[in-house]
Amino acid sequence: MGNLAEQAQPALADLDFLLQRFRQVRATSEAICAPLQVEDHVIQSMPDVSPPKWHLAHISWFFEAFLLKPYLGGYKPLDPIYDHLFNSYYETHGTPFPRARRGLISRPGVADVYRFRQHVDRAMADLLSSPPRQHAGEIMRRVELGLQHEQQHQELLLMDIKHILAQNPLQPAYRADLKPAPKLHQDRIRWHDFTGGVRHIGHAGDGFAFDCETPRHRQFVEDFQLADRLVTNGEYLSFIADGGYARSDLWLSDGWAQINQAGWHAPLYWQRHDDAWHEMTLAGLKPLDLDAPVCHVSFYEADAYARWAGARLPSEAEWEVAASDQPRRGNFLESDHLQPVATRMPHEGPAQLFGDVWEWTASAYRPYPGFRPLEGSLGEYNGKFMSGQMVLRGGCCATPESHIRATYRNFFQPAMRWQFAGLRLAREL
Amino acid sequence: MGNLAEQAQPALADLDFLLQRFRQVRATSEAICAPLQVEDHVIQSMPDVSPPKWHLAHISWFFEAFLLKPYLGGYKPLDPIYDHLFNSYYETHGTPFPRARRGLISRPGVADVYRFRQHVDRAMADLLSSPPRQHAGEIMRRVELGLQHEQQHQELLLMDIKHILAQNPLQPAYRADLKPAPKLHQDRIRWHDFTGGVRHIGHAGDGFAFDCETPRHRQFVEDFQLADRLVTNGEYLSFIADGGYARSDLWLSDGWAQINQAGWHAPLYWQRHDDAWHEMTLAGLKPLDLDAPVCHVSFYEADAYARWAGARLPSEAEWEVAASDQPRRGNFLESDHLQPVATRMPHEGPAQLFGDVWEWTASAYRPYPGFRPLEGSLGEYNGKFMSGQMVLRGGCCATPESHIRATYRNFFQPAMRWQFAGLRLAREL
Amino acid sequence: MGNLAEQAQPALADLDFLLQRFRQVRATSEAICAPLQVEDHVIQSMPDVSPPKWHLAHISWFFEAFLLKPYLGGYKPLDPIYDHLFNSYYETHGTPFPRARRGLISRPGVADVYRFRQHVDRAMADLLSSPPRQHAGEIMRRVELGLQHEQQHQELLLMDIKHILAQNPLQPAYRADLKPAPKLHQDRIRWHDFTGGVRHIGHAGDGFAFDCETPRHRQFVEDFQLADRLVTNGEYLSFIADGGYARSDLWLSDGWAQINQAGWHAPLYWQRHDDAWHEMTLAGLKPLDLDAPVCHVSFYEADAYARWAGARLPSEAEWEVAASDQPRRGNFLESDHLQPVATRMPHEGPAQLFGDVWEWTASAYRPYPGFRPLEGSLGEYNGKFMSGQMVLRGGCCATPESHIRATYRNFFQPAMRWQFAGLRLAREL
Amino acid sequence: MGNLAEQAQPALADLDFLLQRFRQVRATSEAICAPLQVEDHVIQSMPDVSPPKWHLAHISWFFEAFLLKPYLGGYKPLDPIYDHLFNSYYETHGTPFPRARRGLISRPGVADVYRFRQHVDRAMADLLSSPPRQHAGEIMRRVELGLQHEQQHQELLLMDIKHILAQNPLQPAYRADLKPAPKLHQDRIRWHDFTGGVRHIGHAGDGFAFDCETPRHRQFVEDFQLADRLVTNGEYLSFIADGGYARSDLWLSDGWAQINQAGWHAPLYWQRHDDAWHEMTLAGLKPLDLDAPVCHVSFYEADAYARWAGARLPSEAEWEVAASDQPRRGNFLESDHLQPVATRMPHEGPAQLFGDVWEWTASAYRPYPGFRPLEGSLGEYNGKFMSGQMVLRGGCCATPESHIRATYRNFFQPAMRWQFAGLRLAREL
Repeated sequence: MGNLAEQAQPALADLDFLLQRFRQVRATSEAICAPLQVEDHVIQSMPDVSPPKWHLAHISWFFEAFLLKPYLGGYKPLDPIYDHLFNSYYETHGTPFPRARRGLISRPGVADVYRFRQHVDRAMADLLSSPPRQHAGEIMRRVELGLQHEQQHQELLLMDIKHILAQNPLQPAYRADLKPAPKLHQDRIRWHDFTGGVRHIGHAGDGFAFDCETPRHRQFVEDFQLADRLVTNGEYLSFIADGGYARSDLWLSDGWAQINQAGWHAPLYWQRHDDAWHEMTLAGLKPLDLDAPVCHVSFYEADAYARWAGARLPSEAEWEVAASDQPRRGNFLESDHLQPVATRMPHEGPAQLFGDVWEWTASAYRPYPGFRPLEGSLGEYNGKFMSGQMVLRGGCCATPESHIRATYRNFFQPAMRWQFAGLRLAREL
Repeated sequence: MGNLAEQAQPALADLDFLLQRFRQVRATSEAICAPLQVEDHVIQSMPDVSPPKWHLAHISWFFEAFLLKPYLGGYKPLDPIYDHLFNSYYETHGTPFPRARRGLISRPGVADVYRFRQHVDRAMADLLSSPPRQHAGEIMRRVELGLQHEQQHQELLLMDIKHILAQNPLQPAYRADLKPAPKLHQDRIRWHDFTGGVRHIGHAGDGFAFDCETPRHRQFVEDFQLADRLVTNGEYLSFIADGGYARSDLWLSDGWAQINQAGWHAPLYWQRHDDAWHEMTLAGLKPLDLDAPVCHVSFYEADAYARWAGARLPSEAEWEVAASDQPRRGNFLESDHLQPVATRMPHEGPAQLFGDVWEWTASAYRPYPGFRPLEGSLGEYNGKFMSGQMVLRGGCCATPESHIRATYRNFFQPAMRWQFAGLRLAREL
Repeated sequence: MGNLAEQAQPALADLDFLLQRFRQVRATSEAICAPLQVEDHVIQSMPDVSPPKWHLAHISWFFEAFLLKPYLGGYKPLDPIYDHLFNSYYETHGTPFPRARRGLISRPGVADVYRFRQHVDRAMADLLSSPPRQHAGEIMRRVELGLQHEQQHQELLLMDIKHILAQNPLQPAYRADLKPAPKLHQDRIRWHDFTGGVRHIGHAGDGFAFDCETPRHRQFVEDFQLADRLVTNGEYLSFIADGGYARSDLWLSDGWAQINQAGWHAPLYWQRHDDAWHEMTLAGLKPLDLDAPVCHVSFYEADAYARWAGARLPSEAEWEVAASDQPRRGNFLESDHLQPVATRMPHEGPAQLFGDVWEWTASAYRPYPGFRPLEGSLGEYNGKFMSGQMVLRGGCCATPESHIRATYRNFFQPAMRWQFAGLRLAREL
Repeated sequence: MGNLAEQAQPALADLDFLLQRFRQVRATSEAICAPLQVEDHVIQSMPDVSPPKWHLAHISWFFEAFLLKPYLGGYKPLDPIYDHLFNSYYETHGTPFPRARRGLISRPGVADVYRFRQHVDRAMADLLSSPPRQHAGEIMRRVELGLQHEQQHQELLLMDIKHILAQNPLQPAYRADLKPAPKLHQDRIRWHDFTGGVRHIGHAGDGFAFDCETPRHRQFVEDFQLADRLVTNGEYLSFIADGGYARSDLWLSDGWAQINQAGWHAPLYWQRHDDAWHEMTLAGLKPLDLDAPVCHVSFYEADAYARWAGARLPSEAEWEVAASDQPRRGNFLESDHLQPVATRMPHEGPAQLFGDVWEWTASAYRPYPGFRPLEGSLGEYNGKFMSGQMVLRGGCCATPESHIRATYRNFFQPAMRWQFAGLRLAREL
């Protein structure tokens, strides 16, 4: 974001456009929660999951804390304690309410949270209709950041809703009317060649990007090959059938400890019924689609699968080299599958780089050379998480299309599985 | 209950009366939940707490499992999986859904649970209007057990609601219209003398009692003295002021470990604000009433207080000897305080034996000589909990009046504090 | 011990005798450790176990802390820090070194500990040769307590050594020259009848007893029957074969949780090799002796076995009634089996009441009516452990014969198994 | 190691030389343990620490498992169970004895372990005097690997001995005769400039290197600056005095959680006595030397310090660029300080790159492009640990001099502190 600070003053038309976009993004969050019952909004099914009503409030809090309070004269919070309850992890902005206790709070209830949203939305409309002149640039940059933040939470909402409903032996569907997957057969993997050399990696230019995508810098990349599509459920089943989860030589030491301690024998949400594999999806329990990309695997499982397949995961630089000249097309939130699906082949260049599943890379999430976090509390957005996590690239079936780009760095701890994460193979040329 | 098996066949008038009582008890449970928001019904604030909607469903399940399924021909469950979801701990009746996960289940929602209740209520009305002749006695006994069970859960509902709301920094009141405590000054403790000898302890006769209260048997009780009232908040404050929580010599070894590990320095729900003690109650946060009985203390704290005061806790036999010729009057659920209150003195015999707070006794919860649990799954009701728990006597401000009696044995693990529990002093004569 | 306070001044002959006994008891502790390697002295195999060199030092510390420091003018400790390192749990006497960390301390080494013992022994000889007149009675009482304390640790040493060596896949024997078990066939259980009534329970009179055995008081005991011998390994095998560990209806709720969480399917130290049961003993791994008493079972297992056998555990009062007129004969430390063995039948009255294995009773370890702990730090000896534990009676094959009596109350938490504990059946007459 | 496979057949002189080196390295391990008491050899002070006698046995096991068993005809193990007890983590070579239980095993004792060493040494002498011709090259490579492995454990032994003795309130010195630190004043940091570009990183050529140091490959490195010496205790004290441990904005999120959960306020082994900082060293407790390099800090602390100082940690490539043309001189095991010391300034190029303390880098421990682990069980040596760890460079005061080189990659989890680890600052040019 540091680079954005040098942008010029916004025109009125830009403000209008931004307000429009603000309303659109805000509406999408509410549309995502519309199919839920009140009770569904309250559950925290594990410490990493947040209750949907917390998400709805927190993304409003972000606008209140970083825009309304500093820039809207005379702004009155709806309830001062919300600043504590809905602060996620900004230690330099008061004391966040403990994450693992978010599911212990029944009030404010769902209706109260919507009242809070309306309160913030009205005030944001006021702010954007006549922003204080000297701060207009910073305000627009922060609004954009707030919208990108809300889009991240739209994906988190869908991940968390899936996890919450999957705890329930009733196995309720989030929506029965999701768009069904196309029936497509996936051919054997074909390899695309990429020539190495010094490459420019990271974001530069006008469009929005998170601070962690900058600065654009040079990396030396060796020649490599990348598979033309994602690994499928069918391929992953072969790995399981070959004893993949029982062969220590395929696993990182931490991974081997993890699968044994947790008793993992298959991806998250897979269930065996009547001698056939099924999968819990946002449309309820479904027979496993062998041509669809494998999803809800940890980094450890992705890494072990790649080793078993005689390949490896791509580095994030390799992935970015491959993706940088591909169009941003794919199975996103707007496709309304909310589940990865098989792709139509053949395809110019590697398919499924964007959408379907986040692709685990071989790269630890660490700062780029010369990285500088944003100033103030917003500097806590990305930088402080740069330890113990791996980078994932490309977005997934729950990511809003306008949210993703080739330089986007997502990150999760290597044992996490509730995000829509899969893998693509790479190897030396 | 073993003794109930010999009762005679019920008359039709008895059935009518029972159905009336059934409706009344069932209505009370719903009245208790009426002030809650939907969201409040979903929370499990610690593993020992259950979400209110789980309570509402479980007490209906009890009638389904032990009456409708065995005795009502053609009974159809509303949803077969409820038998799994709402079984609390009856291992011999299928596999109970794991207790600690009750708060992870958003469906069935509150409205569904009420539909389940109505379904059971209709079927129970059918069963009680024309019970199969040969089982009528057993049916009536089980209905009575089911109602006593529901009354236990009425108290549990209030304990759990208090705990759920107390987690919330908003400190919401369950009800703003509860009956306020009378302003009464408590005099110094006076001691009542009781002469020892062989005494009959436990339940016998026609009325209802749980299996663990039987058989009536003889115990030798030494001469003893019992305080004329409960220990007050004011007295407990003196214990705190005297360094009670910092003096290892006052504590059982397990208690000393517990208070240090948990960081306890006062009863549960006490909070210090602006240099004054307050207490979270079902009416919200209130200044501490120094004349009211101390409440929400663990056995360890009760035991340490008694040692500090140069006294001890009564044994359950001593308590029963004192209570057996006292009228069952006191501050119960029906008093609508839902909080222990000071008592009007003087009083014939010890005051506050019934109601206000459960009184920790010095006795471990173990079977009486000759104890036999009920037959079948109902045998799991009490007997299997006879380890690691202490007996409490007398009922509390959340106990329905018709539920308590002098022989009633309540039990909790010694570190538990969320029940309405306090203490009364005893000593050698 | 309160009752001991009234004893008269000791004669010189008594002092001589006490010094003799002092030397004898001290020598026994060292004889117990003689077969160990230096390395064996250092291990703490679980938090409940102490390294043998810690035991050797702690039992010397007891004499230093409670006799030498208060009563021997000019006494100089060998090292002041030992007072911290070897204080077990006397919170009112300084800060005990954390129990779970005893195995992290390599120094003082074994030779240093023996130097400490000699230092204490020399000073104790000085003290006993000319005790200050006005304290002579108290000194003699404390010496006796110190010796009883050391005898308790002799049994603990053997329990702990067994546990330490049993962790080792080499399965080393503590001693290869232990006296082998007699080959004796145990007949079916026969029942002895006991008539109920008001009975006197607990210690009174001149001999030594711990404070928790007092005061002698009355209890009402119903008629009961007691088995004529302990439950055998063969009988316990039938319980296992009958699915005892898989039937929830046989278990207390806490016991059921414990065996499932810990994965218990047999007593501690049992191992299955080549389709036959073996048992780790102080003489190494041995085939299971089906006629020997079952040992190393928890209270939960003893309780479940009794339920399976259609019987129950005796209360501690019942046990004491039965034992009070039996001679104190049995398989003790001095028998040099260090393992329970089958008994020669028939027998006047119940056999094996003393020695072989501690017998779990149905009684929680709580104070007798009118109980008063010793004054000062010694009051922490017993009283503060009176929660969460069950009483065991009768001593075992590792108990010094002179240490046990009919009123002796041992106690362990219900899940503990590393002590030599078994059971005897009781039932209603 | 893959690259070593192409080396030519060894000459006899090489074998002689290797045997000589074998004896020397083996003798060093025993010299390290010579000052220990038998009891010290048994302790495992935390799961990451191993008892010294385990180290002594394990480094012998390595030769048995990977050389004697496959290549010495007729080799008889001293005890077959040692193969289980002393396997550290080679899952493909039998089942390793659980790491956290190494401290529960008193036998084999210290004398037995030395017998095992002699047994292995004799057999190794046999093998090296006439190795089977067709395997001679592989044998020599494995012997070298075994010796490098033993050198790693020499450093681990010193780390573990320090940790073991530091648990003890007696604070015993490992050796009183260690060489004292020179009294040297450290000037302010000066910065060395390094010009960026494509650089070759990693090992190539004849000498020994671990597989994880290969293959040599290109990386693009930006211009950077490196401090001319390590961060000192004095500088680190300023960080503490400035509230470093209380300012969330200086810390990675995982680091902030770690220091708060563990209660860290200073490096490991620092203690405050009489208002002055002291440090537990292998020579016992010493006043903190303000000019000596700070040591025993976690990655999180190193990272937070660097942020506080307005700088950052170097990447491992940057470090290697700087070190690759520096002589391998420094404060190593052979210097006999066994503690980092101040350096004599000025210095050609950055000082203290080798020896004193391992330098935390900013780089996660991940495979180099094209990395291939060794074949078979030896492939578990490095590769499987490539997750969740950070790279450290340069060796320390406990590293044998012949063991280190500029390409050497050490790795630890970011919260680990018991290794001799400190830091050097870097920044953008």
